Amino acid sequence: MNAEQIMKSILLDTKKDGIQQVFFVGCGGSLAGLYPAWYLLSREAKTLRAAYYNSSEFLQATPAACGPSSLVICCSLMDTPETVEACRRARALNAQVIALVGSDNSQMVQIAPYSICYRNFDARKRDTNASETKLAWALRLAFELLWQKEGYAAYPQAMEGFEMLNDIVLAGLRYSDRRAPIFAQKAENETMIYVMGSGANNGAMYASSICNLLECMWTDSIAVNTGEYFHGPFETTDQNLAVMLMVGTGRTRALDERALRFLNRYCDNLTVIDSKTFGIDRIAPSVREYFDPLVFMPVMDIYNTALARLRGHCEQDRRYMHKVAY
Amino acid sequence: MNAEQIMKSILLDTKKDGIQQVFFVGCGGSLAGLYPAWYLLSREAKTLRAAYYNSSEFLQATPAACGPSSLVICCSLMDTPETVEACRRARALNAQVIALVGSDNSQMVQIAPYSICYRNFDARKRDTNASETKLAWALRLAFELLWQKEGYAAYPQAMEGFEMLNDIVLAGLRYSDRRAPIFAQKAENETMIYVMGSGANNGAMYASSICNLLECMWTDSIAVNTGEYFHGPFETTDQNLAVMLMVGTGRTRALDERALRFLNRYCDNLTVIDSKTFGIDRIAPSVREYFDPLVFMPVMDIYNTALARLRGHCEQDRRYMHKVAY
Repeated sequence: MNAEQIMKSILLDTKKDGIQQVFFVGCGGSLAGLYPAWYLLSREAKTLRAAYYNSSEFLQATPAACGPSSLVICCSLMDTPETVEACRRARALNAQVIALVGSDNSQMVQIAPYSICYRNFDARKRDTNASETKLAWALRLAFELLWQKEGYAAYPQAMEGFEMLNDIVLAGLRYSDRRAPIFAQKAENETMIYVMGSGANNGAMYASSICNLLECMWTDSIAVNTGEYFHGPFETTDQNLAVMLMVGTGRTRALDERALRFLNRYCDNLTVIDSKTFGIDRIAPSVREYFDPLVFMPVMDIYNTALARLRGHCEQDRRYMHKVAY
Repeated sequence: MNAEQIMKSILLDTKKDGIQQVFFVGCGGSLAGLYPAWYLLSREAKTLRAAYYNSSEFLQATPAACGPSSLVICCSLMDTPETVEACRRARALNAQVIALVGSDNSQMVQIAPYSICYRNFDARKRDTNASETKLAWALRLAFELLWQKEGYAAYPQAMEGFEMLNDIVLAGLRYSDRRAPIFAQKAENETMIYVMGSGANNGAMYASSICNLLECMWTDSIAVNTGEYFHGPFETTDQNLAVMLMVGTGRTRALDERALRFLNRYCDNLTVIDSKTFGIDRIAPSVREYFDPLVFMPVMDIYNTALARLRGHCEQDRRYMHKVAY
């Protein structure tokens, strides 16, 4: 079933109360991949409610509101144990469950009544359509739900957005192919890199910080929301601080631009990544910001790859993950 | 009016639809102070929904759901411009608004129909009751709402918790007075300190990282959720990494203990702060975890103070805040 059919089926099945709340559940990068979908519902939904949880937190302190009128969207590439359990818990509570999985052999496909197999976008090979990623599937499900449940007015623009998405991602990657090595040279010896952004891009910023830098590069990194920056974090800023600033094209762009003005004065080691330069302006303003992180995610990966190449550090190197018991 | 009277008045005023959603809005430490209240509603409420936003994000991309059946709780010590504007926006949308303010002269008192003047707990002077802080007021409002709207069963235990809170905080501070200098000696020359925790303590962990370390100590810091730690961030861990681990007494304690087991193996520079040692076990298990961050917040401040003293760095020193235009 595609996203439209899945949502139709779920809404038919729950017609008495309907779906009243959506829980997005996952760990690390898989959780961050659900962020744009959560963000869409949190900003646009009139009666539907959305919540966003790490799988372990969802399991240990399961929300009392999770039940037959809830939809739980769980995401994991390779059956993360906590996420498999969260899937099971949601089913036991008679919630509707959609599993976003990396393979049809996933246990989550057995547990969840609905599942979608996504593909990771490889920013080097570029052989996957950007509409097939976990971010895109989750966002599409959220648009479907908004439309089918609340008659969301910008639905046609959203569908057009998905049509244009892959072209915009490819443009963003081509543009970044030339700029990423410049960043890598500046950041080669940095042991700490701040990643900043706002709005729908909070998830991409978080993933870029914890997956690209902490996990793959073994480099300390803080994800700083540009709206929070001036309320504490900016005190560490000086000319030497390495900062990657994601300037988005959504409604919170003003926050990113405010941080940009400040950083231009006090920081010498700044890399600005502005999604406007990728042609995302082609997408209708009403829905553009929700697509922003779907472009940023692969683009940020290009910067990470350039850094890895310069450092001779293999991005697949792990100290602990899948190597020791934990 | 006290918290009980404010909630009664709001529920009388909105009796047709009642309050369906609570938005917690603030910046930096003031936002983090609302976290325990948000966390309570997110886990315990059956029909009420809660959301948690930075004031600028709330302003730039105001949720479509914010309206007459919403309650917006805004917090700011000294009229943060974005938070004052968020207050005004919420009123313009006919939401009910409660302002948590640092002074009765706050502009927010003029804008919001309800306001409460809180007191900052000074971990050195200890001359304020811990039930008068922003964290305590917000949490009390949330308990009142849960009780009056949904008949929350553990309400009497919660009220007993507030009675015991100040004693537990004082015990936590006395306990930490002896341990904080040990932490400070280990961390004296660290340029990066991780702060870890989970559940209701996510806000205290965030505040400790961005307010104590980044803002007051000009020391880089990452706030890492113990449930997320194993999905990326743990790859930077080695014997030298400086880590402060908050082990809570709530339902997510298992996540903190899992991180503790791992850190005991791979990290030499670990400081464990376990709220169990503060006697928080006296509070009933049903509500204990919601009080955990109210104890951790002043306790973490003691560690920060010890570090400041050893470094001869004044905690009130700022490079930019209220010193340059931004």
